[in-house]
Parts: sequence; structure tokens; C-alpha cells
Amino acid sequence: MREITENKEYPGYLLKCNEHLKLDSGKSISNFQIAYQTYGKLNEKKDNAILICHALTGDQFPAEESPITKKNGWWDLMVGPDRPIDTNKYFVICSNVLGGCVGTTGPNDINPETSKIYGLDFPTITIRDMVRVQKILIDELKIIKLVSVIGGSMGAMQVLQWAATYPESVKSIISVAGSLKHSAQNIAFDEAGRQSIMLDPKWHNGQYLDKDDKPENGLSVARMIAHITYLSEKAFQNKFGRNLQEKKDLSFGFGIDFQVESYLRYQGRSFVDRFDANSYLYMTRAMDYFDVSEDIQKNKEEIINNEVRFLVLSFTSDWLFPTKESKEIVSLLNSIGSNVSFAEVVSDRGHDSFLLDEPQFFRVSEGFLKGIK
Amino acid sequence: MREITENKEYPGYLLKCNEHLKLDSGKSISNFQIAYQTYGKLNEKKDNAILICHALTGDQFPAEESPITKKNGWWDLMVGPDRPIDTNKYFVICSNVLGGCVGTTGPNDINPETSKIYGLDFPTITIRDMVRVQKILIDELKIIKLVSVIGGSMGAMQVLQWAATYPESVKSIISVAGSLKHSAQNIAFDEAGRQSIMLDPKWHNGQYLDKDDKPENGLSVARMIAHITYLSEKAFQNKFGRNLQEKKDLSFGFGIDFQVESYLRYQGRSFVDRFDANSYLYMTRAMDYFDVSEDIQKNKEEIINNEVRFLVLSFTSDWLFPTKESKEIVSLLNSIGSNVSFAEVVSDRGHDSFLLDEPQFFRVSEGFLKGIK
Repeated sequence: MREITENKEYPGYLLKCNEHLKLDSGKSISNFQIAYQTYGKLNEKKDNAILICHALTGDQFPAEESPITKKNGWWDLMVGPDRPIDTNKYFVICSNVLGGCVGTTGPNDINPETSKIYGLDFPTITIRDMVRVQKILIDELKIIKLVSVIGGSMGAMQVLQWAATYPESVKSIISVAGSLKHSAQNIAFDEAGRQSIMLDPKWHNGQYLDKDDKPENGLSVARMIAHITYLSEKAFQNKFGRNLQEKKDLSFGFGIDFQVESYLRYQGRSFVDRFDANSYLYMTRAMDYFDVSEDIQKNKEEIINNEVRFLVLSFTSDWLFPTKESKEIVSLLNSIGSNVSFAEVVSDRGHDSFLLDEPQFFRVSEGFLKGIK
Repeated sequence: MREITENKEYPGYLLKCNEHLKLDSGKSISNFQIAYQTYGKLNEKKDNAILICHALTGDQFPAEESPITKKNGWWDLMVGPDRPIDTNKYFVICSNVLGGCVGTTGPNDINPETSKIYGLDFPTITIRDMVRVQKILIDELKIIKLVSVIGGSMGAMQVLQWAATYPESVKSIISVAGSLKHSAQNIAFDEAGRQSIMLDPKWHNGQYLDKDDKPENGLSVARMIAHITYLSEKAFQNKFGRNLQEKKDLSFGFGIDFQVESYLRYQGRSFVDRFDANSYLYMTRAMDYFDVSEDIQKNKEEIINNEVRFLVLSFTSDWLFPTKESKEIVSLLNSIGSNVSFAEVVSDRGHDSFLLDEPQFFRVSEGFLKGIK
């Protein structure tokens, strides 16, 4: 049984599914729910819908004011009236990923089988599982074919998985700052972050909520590590350089001397208020496990027959998901004969560029979408 | 009073100094000691000595079998009979840096003024302070002028500081994979590592030894973070890729699936046995504070008058101390009219290249040293 209700905890909607869902791990979940938000209007033919997939620490609120942060949504520059993803024209859907912590079922929800918080009993999920759940939502909204599925970073992974698994359901996809598979260096950064969380004694082997405790220190360091990888060396240089934080001289201590330290500590501290440590573990693991090349190869006929159009975008200074990896996507898609476009956007701002004001990025995305009939 | 004795804890020598040493912070230390090792023979004129400066986690044992690890010394490929730094010809000195944890006075020694372990009462030190202490050692050995001072990474910082502060005491220096000042990105990585240590409850505000405890988890994560920065993305790809660790399938859990995870955890775990958390804090802070440009400018006349020769080396795939930063050293040295050579060594192996078998690197270093009269 499936039912759509208003989401009272996080404004938007909830799709509640009273059914078993088999996951890649072989395990299943039941009674799961999907928290999502929509922007614009679904037309009568239901053929103007775009699905947006969020990145590791994103949520279902890309546009307008976010009810969580009370600031602009994380992709407000991209999504809205007269924006590249124009909500006057398109019906935009964004859901919190499976395993997340903003309303969709994740490790900190109650396991219906034990009536206790899942913790590490939550099954390990994959990007494919996240997309499976999104497909249920799209089906439930009676949308046969999406105009596009669009996302950056972990969002780009979902986007590529959509094209690989459900090529009959997408007219196009836009992969922004993504890859075919997570690199060894990226797995390493993820693992350092996970170890930081799991070695925090307050993690309690994942059952911290039972103990009314939280591994805030570990999660905060994990966020600091990750945050460094989101900026380019040049962005660090331009934003902070070696500027001191509200002082003229070095303090000769371990407090905050440099602006960059203040920034990093703030990033760590503020993150723990809005994100859950176990979700962080599950999502980074899903990224590590991601390798969509085989699925693309396996479904190449369907991808071609359905005439799925691909746009692959990267940023010059992104060293977490460098252009090289986007080119590997393009190369594979070309090798199966699919319709793929590629653009490398010139930006100094590293991986984070996909969330920032990058006119070339917006122009290319907007133009590509206009061409999708 | 100064006295040289045999070092019983770590084979080699100890220079014990019963005197006050004023540090950059304005504070002083007294009754400090310098642990060092030597290789080869000092000639009668005492003009065949080379000082080697170690990197963040190095020690005074670059050559032969290390008494600590029982493996080859950390620069065994570079230092020894018939090696680029030929111990048949040169008398090679290497000392553990001030603030270190291999015999030289550091935060985990007894503060003579309180008879308690220093902990955070140890004064914050700078690269200039480390070099000050090395100069005392060189003076004590009655060496007027060193053939060269050579080091990589944090060692390169000391090397440049030597030329800037004591140009009358060095014929040449070789800076390997170094910089004029620590970049914002590098400060950020250091800060993430420090936060990992300082947020570990077992750090006990630096007084963990009093409590017979150690922030091993925090130090281990700090090491993992740092270790990622020592390798290039390509090195990660070549060494590990997405290979699984002794298994055929993903485990769908948070144990070790990928070889790169096993490697990182091992790096973290083994580090805590040989390194001290407070030393890690003090040394990374010294690196953050490092900016030698002003000292070079200030002493440019002495650098020129003393005809100090410089060799600046970098590695193509080093993203922690990229070639760009070595070129900035060269540029500054050229601008003051000094005698500087530069070579960029082609290597896939990232910052760690300076410790590895890199024939071009060895050839250039050896040739440069031969030219020093």
C-alpha cells in the first residue's frame, strides 16, 4: 500500500510505502517513506517533470527558501521561475535519498520489525537503491517519462544510474561533476571521515540515539575533511590565503589563528546540527560502492532505443571529481553510441562550483533542457 | 653548559644544553636536549659536513637500518656509501627537531620548572626555532660551514630557514618539495588533523600521559588525512584502484572492503605506536606559521655575500607542495640575485616521491652537491 500525505516535520510531502523493497545487499526494508518537495506545476499530460537528485549533504529543498536553514535552497540559482530549470515551465521534484536524515527512511528511524532505532541494523544501501526508491515515487506520481534527471556529485551518480536502470523513463539526464565510479582517492577520503565518526566513543557502535548521545566530534572532523575536498587550492588561496582571524599577530597556541581555521571549525560545528552521523556513513558507503559502468554496458540497447540524451558537465578546478572522470563517462557513452554532449566549465572554485553562481554552467544546462522535446 | 653524550634510548648522540633558549613566541625553554645521529666521518678541516632536516613524521635516522623500525632509514636511498649524499665523502648529521618525540625536547618531556610533563605548557615552536637548535648542535660540533643543508617537505622549510637565518654557515641548500610559506589548503588539512586529535576525549587537554592514556583514535585519523595528501590521485589509482581486500564481493558493511581502506587504517594504526599526538600538534603548527619570505628579503645581502647556492626541487604530481610553490621559491631567490637552480622531477607518486626511488631526483641532487666547493 502506498499513500501520499503532507509532511509535517519537513514541509512538503511524504510517500509512505507499506511494502518490502529488496535492496542490492540482498536485504529488504519495509514500511519505508520518501520525503520530497515539488516546485512548479505538473501539466495534464504529466510530461513536464524534472527530477533533481541531491548530493551527499543535500536535501529535498533545492529551490525557494529552505524550511530547514531558512536560507535559499541549495540549488536556488539553478531552480526557480526563469532560472535554468524553470519552474514556470517544469514540474520539479526532489526527494531526500534513501538512508538520509531529512524525512526519508534512514538508519535513525524505527525499524518496524524490532520497534527500535535501526542504527547499524539498517541495511547498507547503494546508489541503485536510492534510485529504486525515486522510481517508486515517480511511478506514484503517474509520470511515465521525465524530461530530465539532474544532479551534481553524489547527485550525478544517481542521475547516471537512472539512465542505466530506467532508460525508458528519462528523456535526458544532466550529470554535473560526477564519475562512473568512485576513485580510490575519494574512497580514501570517505574512509578517513567514517573512521573519524566510528572511532568517536560517542558513536556507540551506531546506537547513539538510544543513549541520547551523538558523535558530534567525529562527524565534525569528517565534515572538515570533506569540506577541504570541495574547494580548490586556488579557492582556499583567494578566500583565505594566510590571513589571520580578527588579530594582527600569531597567538602561538592551538586556538584559531588563521581565517581558514575559523571557517573549517565553523563548517564542522554547524554541520552536526543538521546532519546525522549514521546517514553520513551509509551515504559515503553508497558512493564508494558506486560503479555504473557495467549497468550502462548491460542496458546499452535500451539506452539507445529510448534515445536518452546525456549532458556531462565538469569544472576545471574540481579535483574531487575532476574533468578526467567526466570524460570517462562521455567516452563510455560514446562507445555505446548514445547521444552525449560534454562541457567543461572554467571555474576557480573547485567541486563546490556546481552549487555556485557559474553563468557558463547555467547557460549550457538551460540550453540543453530547451532542446529536449 | 653543553655536553654531548651517548643516547641510550635511541642509538646515536644527545647534546644536552643547560641554558635558556629564547623562542619566537617570546617564551624560553631551558635544559633542552637534541637527539642526533651521524653517518660518515668528519674530516680534520671539518668542512665535509651535511645537515639533513627531517619531515613532519621523520626522525634522526635517515640512513642505514633504523633502530626504531628495524627497517631501512627513511632516506636510505639518498644517504649512504656511494649514494647521492655519499657518506664515504660527507659527514652527515641528522637531528630530531625541537618539539619532536624521538629524543629531542618536546611536549612530552618533563618541564624542569614544574617537574611535570609539559603537555600544552610546552611553548609553541616555529621552524625558525627548530633551526636555532640545529645551529647550536652544528656550533657544538665546531663546524663553521656546512657543505649543504638538505630536506624535503617540513625538512625543506628548515633548509630554507637555514639559508635565510645563517647564510654564513651554509655553502648550499637543497629544498625538496617545499614552499616559502604554508598554503591555506595545507593549513586546512593540518587543522582537520589537529581537531581530530584535540576532540578525542583521551587527549585530556594535552595531559594524557599524566593519565596514562593516549588519544590514539584522534592521532590515527589525523594520520589518515595526512597520508591521503602524500599520494597523488594517480598513485592511489595505480596502487589500489577499486580493488577489494582479500574478497570477491562487497560486504555491504562498514568493515574493510577496498584495499585502499585497509592501507589507510594500517597507516593510522601503526603511526600511533611511533608518534606522539602532542608533537603532531606542535609540528603542524610550526608548519602553518612558516613564512620564510621576509627573512630571505631581510638577509638578502648576507645570502649574496656568502654566495649560498640553492637547488630547488619539486615533483610533477605533488599536490601538497606543488611545483608552483617551488617556483615561487626560485622566483624570490632570483629576485634577490642569488645563485639558484631548479628542477621539476617527473613522477606519478605525489608528495611522497621525495622518499622514493626517483633516479632523476637522485642524479640532480648528487650532481649539484659535486659542484659545491
